[in-house]
Order: sequence, then C-alpha cells, then structure tokens
Amino acid sequence: MATAKGYAAESADSKLAPISFERREPRPDDVSIEIDYCGVCHTDIHFAQNDWGVTQFPVIPGHEIIGRVTAVGSDVTDYKVGDTVGVGCMVDSCRSCSACESGLEQYCLEGMTATYNGEDRYDGSITYGGYSDRVVVSERFVVKVPEKLDPASAAPILCAGITTYSPLRHYGVRPGDKVGVIGMGGLGHMGVKFAKALGAEVTIFTRSESKVAEAKKQGADHVVVSTDDSQMEAAAESFDFMLDTVPVQHDLNPYLNCLTFDGTHILVGLLEPVDPPLEAGGLVFKRRVLAGSLIGGMPETQEVLDFCADHGITCDVEMLDIKNINEAYERMKKGDVKYRFVIDMKTLKAA
Amino acid sequence: MATAKGYAAESADSKLAPISFERREPRPDDVSIEIDYCGVCHTDIHFAQNDWGVTQFPVIPGHEIIGRVTAVGSDVTDYKVGDTVGVGCMVDSCRSCSACESGLEQYCLEGMTATYNGEDRYDGSITYGGYSDRVVVSERFVVKVPEKLDPASAAPILCAGITTYSPLRHYGVRPGDKVGVIGMGGLGHMGVKFAKALGAEVTIFTRSESKVAEAKKQGADHVVVSTDDSQMEAAAESFDFMLDTVPVQHDLNPYLNCLTFDGTHILVGLLEPVDPPLEAGGLVFKRRVLAGSLIGGMPETQEVLDFCADHGITCDVEMLDIKNINEAYERMKKGDVKYRFVIDMKTLKAA
Repeated sequence: MATAKGYAAESADSKLAPISFERREPRPDDVSIEIDYCGVCHTDIHFAQNDWGVTQFPVIPGHEIIGRVTAVGSDVTDYKVGDTVGVGCMVDSCRSCSACESGLEQYCLEGMTATYNGEDRYDGSITYGGYSDRVVVSERFVVKVPEKLDPASAAPILCAGITTYSPLRHYGVRPGDKVGVIGMGGLGHMGVKFAKALGAEVTIFTRSESKVAEAKKQGADHVVVSTDDSQMEAAAESFDFMLDTVPVQHDLNPYLNCLTFDGTHILVGLLEPVDPPLEAGGLVFKRRVLAGSLIGGMPETQEVLDFCADHGITCDVEMLDIKNINEAYERMKKGDVKYRFVIDMKTLKAA
Repeated sequence: MATAKGYAAESADSKLAPISFERREPRPDDVSIEIDYCGVCHTDIHFAQNDWGVTQFPVIPGHEIIGRVTAVGSDVTDYKVGDTVGVGCMVDSCRSCSACESGLEQYCLEGMTATYNGEDRYDGSITYGGYSDRVVVSERFVVKVPEKLDPASAAPILCAGITTYSPLRHYGVRPGDKVGVIGMGGLGHMGVKFAKALGAEVTIFTRSESKVAEAKKQGADHVVVSTDDSQMEAAAESFDFMLDTVPVQHDLNPYLNCLTFDGTHILVGLLEPVDPPLEAGGLVFKRRVLAGSLIGGMPETQEVLDFCADHGITCDVEMLDIKNINEAYERMKKGDVKYRFVIDMKTLKAA
C-alpha cells in the first residue's frame, strides 16, 4: 500500500477537501500512474452530493485521468515507465463475458468496476478516482496518450469524448449525414467536433438565441434555436441522427420530429424517466429509433484518442487549481464553463 | 365509375351497415379487383368509431384484401385477369421520394395514401376499403398471392403479417437469436410464426397464466407470465429482441430490462404516449434500442407472402359473414378471436 493524497467529499453536504488515503498494492498486471491532469465531469458532482443515493463516503471523484507510468507489474506488456497514459470511467470488469470479449467492458454482464465509488473485484475495497496524485490500474483499463495530443486537454476525451464518439461510430455516421447535437456542454461540444471530423453536416440545437454565435464558433454548420417553433418546424424530418447530451429531463418529442424516417435519436446524458412522455407514434410512423449509449469500451477509448490525435481534436478546457474545485462545481451547476474544467494536479502538492 | 356494394359506418356512433357507393374509374396503371376476402384489423374499429378524430364518414374499412383481377389498365404489366392478388394498408404514395425509391412507401415523405379514409392523389376523393365487393388499385400497390397460400387465411398477412415480419427482417433476426413476443393477438401470433421461421428461439410474454397452453400451441419455445415477478426476473437481460404488439399503454420498462445489452425493443402496436414513463437509464446503461416500425413497403409485402408460401405460414382465422361485422367488433374489443376475423365477401351478395 502506498499513501496517496487526494480531494474527497466526506458527506453529501461537505465540500471537497484534502485527504490522505491508501492506494492498493500493485498486482502483476497493474500499471502505477502519477496523475498530471484530471477532468471534472458532472457525474463527479452527482457522486459528491450523493444525488443517486449510492455514494460511499469518503468519495474521491475523477474519471478523466492523464498521467505518467511510474511502475509496471511483472505481467504488464504494453506499458513502460515514463509512458503518458490515460484512465477513464472504469478500471475493471469480468473480462470474460460476451460484452467484455467484444471490447465493450462498459456493458460487462457482471457490471464494470467504476474508477471511483466502485468495488474492487479482488479485495472488495472501494475505488478512488483521479482527484489525487496517483492511481493503480490494470493495464487492460489503461490507454496510451498519443504524443501529438496535449495531455491536459486530452483528459476529457476519456469521458466526454468517448461518450459522444462511441455512438457516432456505432451507428456509422459518415460523410453526408445530417447530425443534430442537442446541448452544448462538455459532451455536446465534443460531439460537434467528432461529427464534423466524420464528415457529417452538423447542427447544434440550443435553447437560447444568445448561444448561436458560440455554437457557430464550435464548428457547427447550422444552429437551431429549439425554443423557436418556426425554426423547429423548418428542421422537421431532416436529420439522420440526433446526439442528445442533455442530462436533465426534457421533451424528446420535438427532437424526434426532426429525424427523417429511419433516423436515430441517441441519448448519452439522460438517465431519468422520460418526461414529458415519449410519443410512441413518433417512432412507429417513421421507423425511428431511440437509443442509449454509455461511454465506450477500452479498444474504442484507445481509438478515440488516436482519432483525436489524427484529426487535431482536443477538448476546450479551463485549467483548475484543485483548491478551487468547490467553486468549479458551483460554476458547473450554472453551466458556466467552456467546456470542461481540468485539474492541474501539480496544484495538489501545494494544497 | 362503377357502382359498388360495401359495409360502412356512417358516424362514430352508428353500426356498420350496407352501402352502395362509386368506385373510381380505372386509370392506365390500375388493376380492378373483385374482392373475395377481407381481414378485420383493430384499426378498422378505431376508424369506424373515429377514435383518432380523423375519420371521414361514411368510412368503409378493410385493408387486408384478397381478390381476383377482373380488368387491367393499358399500362399494367405485372397482372392479368384472373390473378389472385392482395391489397394491404396503402394504395398510393408519391413514388419519387427517398422512402418510395427504397420501396418503403409506408414512410413516403409526402405521406402514403391509406387504403381507406385516405385522399386520392389525383382527384382528391376519399378512399374506401375492403369491406366491399370490388376495388381499383394502381399495380404498384398490388401484390401477387402465391398459389400455395390459402387465400382466406392469407388476407391478414397484408397487415398483421407484414407489420411483424418487416421489423424482424429489418433488424436481421437470425438463427440463435432470442426473441420475445409481447401480446398474443393478430399481430403477436404472426410474430411468433415469423420469428420461429427465421430460426429464433421464441418466448411469448403473456399477462395471464391461463394463456400459457395456448402460447405453447402457437409454437413458442417458452412462455413468460409477465405478471409473475419471479418469471420476469429470470428473463432479465437475456433477449436480443422484443416484438411488442400491444396496442394500448403499458409499462415498457420491465420488458426493456429483459433485453441483453445491444438488445432492441420494437414497437408495432403502440401509438400513444409511453406511460408509465420510459426509464432512459434502461437504454443508456445497456446500449439498448427502442424502435418503431409501421407495416412494410410494397416489395417487402410481396416478400412476406412468398415467405409464407415457402414456410407454410398462414394466419389463424375465423371466417365471418359480413352481416355479423358489428358483433365481431364487439368480440375483438374483448380479445375474443383466434386470431383474426376474415370476412368471406360472398356473404356481401346476400347481405
């Protein structure tokens, strides 16, 4: 065991504060990593606040981890000391079910082990995330960060990036497709970059006229203000895909109506009951599809990093001193970040 | 114009009764058909009662039509007098949009012309359905009935059959797949036959223990009583496809939970808002798909008739004297038919 330093929430009401804790002993297939950067995902806030009632305190959030390899176990073949690597939303799975064998560990039939607030499959200990100085992860759940990528702005690719990249690839988005992206946060702005890089004609749907200029700046070919009925009518039945990154309840029906027949509405943010109710007729009469998608598997997480390097894609980030994590959470709740906070872990030493 | 005889509802409250009406003059691409049989679909009841508020009275229902060709227009190439043919749910479409060009006329971007209560694209007249002695239809919307098929029991293939066949084919159901069929009416019992013929392992989901024996008789490999929590738990995460034929509001979430990751829940009956609300997490966490599907295109409607002939599949029907159509509607509302009424149109002459 090695003593590590991190930032934790001790209860649903407490602010995050420095903590010392023990990282587990490395196993033969483990990579030990010194963390340089960690992105801040909205999910971190949900766990810190115990919004879903499943948090085990203290919780050390963070699942967009970039760092350098400091040691490797005797069975490790793909990594060596000094490599720049990433760790995303999961650190283990059963590795033998049909999902794991397909490289879709996020859908592991026995359940994946989350990077934080998960339960270690060997010793039952609770996993701790990337708001810390080091982490120990089995090499199957580590990815290589291409040299061409800026490590800090690559961090959010490990969650916000893969979450939007995976469904666009799974559903085969290709040149000429018309893709709508709903929501312009950490996920949405990455979705726009990926859809553009895949050759699609991309439209951002935003609720506010005031965000149109910013949406265009993000590379969207078109912007639809979704609160303007005439714009929504003009957009009817014209999209092949809608990438819906909105994490709170919203009316899906006007967006479904924007899909052409055989179009697909992909949910990557919403986890709650659909309210207002979904109109089944909107699916049936046009053979439309409502699909969900969760992050991505390990091969695809490596693929998205390589894709980003090849296409010059990074996340737009605001660097954060870990001392300011609580203020950052407050800003995120107001949507006040373009588009992802990334903690510079050097600031943890001073904290 | 030719005077025809039929059965019509004159208002939402009236019973169906005999009517004389004019069939339109045949055009060069038209096939004139003397109707032998017409299946009775639940949709007929909805239109007769004006449940959807769109009925134009008098309405002559019926879109599962089997008959013999009595005349063909000068441009008709595929049919000749004496052929046994079928007409399903649509009689026209724009014929030039991307959907029509793909043989998916039911999703015509300009809207298909329904077999009854539709508006003729040339003269604006209202279309009348198959509860009548004759019909005039453009050859593109006519299908050949293979000799091997019994014409009477083939009638419901034109709606109940194609509606269940089309999505099973579209989603590529194949040997080894596990398919659940929800609902055991006209659509459900055809879905079971098709899924079995495609090589799937088929489970019928029924709400009532009393229907288990009948479900087995229908060819299901397994039966799950959906009101039994322990049976539903045992079925969790094990199906590749669920074919949901239930036409009234029902809780989709327990069925979604029966899908494995990447599984697809296909709605072919439900047109109303989904209530209780759909749990978005049930889609996202397992990359599941909720899809809709509407009847089938013309090439596929021909395909399903040929498939039925090749596989010895027909609909289980109860022959009906058209005089008893109102009683049949009452029985259908109670689910009291195995599994489709088919009107013997000879009885119309006596009516």
